[in-house]
Amino acid sequence: KKQYRIAVIPGDGIGKEVMPEGLRVLEAAGKKHGVSVQFDHFDFASWDYYEKHGEMMPADWKAQIGKHDAIYFGAVGWPAKIPDHVSLWGSLIKFRREFDQYVNLRPVRLMPGVPSPLANRKPGDIDFWVVRENTEGEYSSVGGRMFPDTDREFVTQQTVMTRTGVDRILKFAFELAQSRPKKHLTSATKSNGISITMPYWDERVEAMAKKYPKVKWDKYHIDILTANFVLHPDWFDVVVGSNLFGDILSDLGPACTGTIGIAPSGNINPEGNFPSVFEPVHGSAPDIAGQGIANPIGMIWSGAMMMEHLGEKAAAESIVGAIERTLGERTLRTRDLGGNADTTACGKAVADMV
Amino acid sequence: KKQYRIAVIPGDGIGKEVMPEGLRVLEAAGKKHGVSVQFDHFDFASWDYYEKHGEMMPADWKAQIGKHDAIYFGAVGWPAKIPDHVSLWGSLIKFRREFDQYVNLRPVRLMPGVPSPLANRKPGDIDFWVVRENTEGEYSSVGGRMFPDTDREFVTQQTVMTRTGVDRILKFAFELAQSRPKKHLTSATKSNGISITMPYWDERVEAMAKKYPKVKWDKYHIDILTANFVLHPDWFDVVVGSNLFGDILSDLGPACTGTIGIAPSGNINPEGNFPSVFEPVHGSAPDIAGQGIANPIGMIWSGAMMMEHLGEKAAAESIVGAIERTLGERTLRTRDLGGNADTTACGKAVADMV
Ligand SMILES: CC(C)[C@H](C(=O)O)[C@@H](O)C(=O)O
Ligand SMILES: CC(C)[C@H](C(=O)O)[C@@H](O)C(=O)O
Repeated sequence: KKQYRIAVIPGDGIGKEVMPEGLRVLEAAGKKHGVSVQFDHFDFASWDYYEKHGEMMPADWKAQIGKHDAIYFGAVGWPAKIPDHVSLWGSLIKFRREFDQYVNLRPVRLMPGVPSPLANRKPGDIDFWVVRENTEGEYSSVGGRMFPDTDREFVTQQTVMTRTGVDRILKFAFELAQSRPKKHLTSATKSNGISITMPYWDERVEAMAKKYPKVKWDKYHIDILTANFVLHPDWFDVVVGSNLFGDILSDLGPACTGTIGIAPSGNINPEGNFPSVFEPVHGSAPDIAGQGIANPIGMIWSGAMMMEHLGEKAAAESIVGAIERTLGERTLRTRDLGGNADTTACGKAVADMV
Repeated sequence: KKQYRIAVIPGDGIGKEVMPEGLRVLEAAGKKHGVSVQFDHFDFASWDYYEKHGEMMPADWKAQIGKHDAIYFGAVGWPAKIPDHVSLWGSLIKFRREFDQYVNLRPVRLMPGVPSPLANRKPGDIDFWVVRENTEGEYSSVGGRMFPDTDREFVTQQTVMTRTGVDRILKFAFELAQSRPKKHLTSATKSNGISITMPYWDERVEAMAKKYPKVKWDKYHIDILTANFVLHPDWFDVVVGSNLFGDILSDLGPACTGTIGIAPSGNINPEGNFPSVFEPVHGSAPDIAGQGIANPIGMIWSGAMMMEHLGEKAAAESIVGAIERTLGERTLRTRDLGGNADTTACGKAVADMV
């Protein structure tokens, strides 16, 4: 049986507190399902490392983690000490670009025990995926400023969509939709207002849809789509969007299910040419770091996504099942969800139920 | 006493059905508060006009309506007959650009009798304004396509922010915040991902904030901001965003209050060099047009915003009060809100209570 090598990067703040629980659960699931995993620990991509070395990562970071089967990542950033554009663009965004992790994948699922801000929704009602393009689009570095400090001053920044970039994310999304019972895909657009790039996106969606005749698809402009996340979250199965639209929808979706603190995410290179990164959606949370009260579920759930990505479906499903049972018990949930467990107790509970 | 001249453009579909109710209420409010209004009716900016003339508006449209004190607009568009980019860009978007209506203003308010999709919120809990830049930003026409129909194909589109464009919308938003009891402004950004235009936006917000020391302000990245609309709608007072971000927030906000079908909007040229347009947020709704069941509240509420814009505060407030009382009675609400009134009955009810 193959042994997986996982690069473990806890990062900053509560990243360091939830990581041990993620590892605990992966070990338990591995034992149960005969999945052998080797964890290699790295201290870079953190404020601590930056303080010592003046940079977020060593020059040879790619050599150090580029051959691993996946990267299991806690959280990075500490805005009071280091600006986001240094910490994030020096680590996470670098991974996305240089490891060509062109898929950002996040589940939106109403879980037991998690209060939803939406009225009258119960677990099972909301269960879909947001697929976000993760390398181009609105997050380009092309643009600049002219006539600085005068009344004529202006800035421009280009949104860039390539045929390669758009088609591969759409392919991933249609494949995912096709693999699901509902086989339904929704595309986020804004072609009535953003008149060049968005009609191109629509055009590529139509072309790709022809290759997936079993998938029913529709599209909404992003403004009404965000409204429909709130009004009709049960309409969705797989939602695909550009870098910016996907970013928005994959925060809004978890918010609608009350799960922003426990949502997982994958930054995926589907071809496996480079390792993919799995990390909780939450950040390093300086305000609660060091108290042992952080909710480890996002980290643990990200571990399940990692197992799924590695092809270990049984291990992944058993982790998700254990998460659901843990969340269902008030005494096993952390305080942010009205429970009274601390980080470790919650992590142990999931590991026990795996 | 001054007489106002209002250009009335019902447009398409339910626009033609709700307009008479809007006018009915404006007449009643005018009578009560001694505001004299002359209505001039125009049939362009509609599918009917397009069918006859092959264009959305006559060549001299600016001369016909450019001297009015305001434009009262129903709804435009009929996607089955005419593509959005022809109908919308040939009318509404033209008004915004050519009449320099650089402010798009929409209230987000939880009204009595309107079921909110959010749990545990009641009228009074949610009451804020979204101020959207309405002429530049992401809705530029600069960009294009290269290497068409090859694997190298790509498209680009520029986001353009000018000092003039950004500063004037921020000024409007800060002034509005300063005039309100909470004096709180929230700016929508995404400077951690969109690395050129959004940091510029932030920079101008900081500069403008210095001129309004009484206004407390904060900023959120658009992803978490949409989440906070759902999780903490009570946090907001005035929210300002770029053309795209404002577009998203001003659909999401009304969705959170369940009011997308009754929300009003103003496309405003604050200096009064050109007429401003007041219109309901909803579209022409081909699916229910012709049945007399459309909810006229969005149209009526837009009339209140128009009165406010003209400086007729008392008339505006009495219309909003009458709307609230009407919505509070099940028999006076339309069916979309669980009532049993038709369009006319609902409009008459508001007019009676003005
Ligand atoms: C129709 C469309 C171009 C428009 C916009 O995005 O501005 C609409 O969504 C609006 O908000 O008025
Ligand atoms: C930190 C930021 C640049 C990032 C993004 O917008 O991609 C974050 O919001 C995310 O979704 O991972």
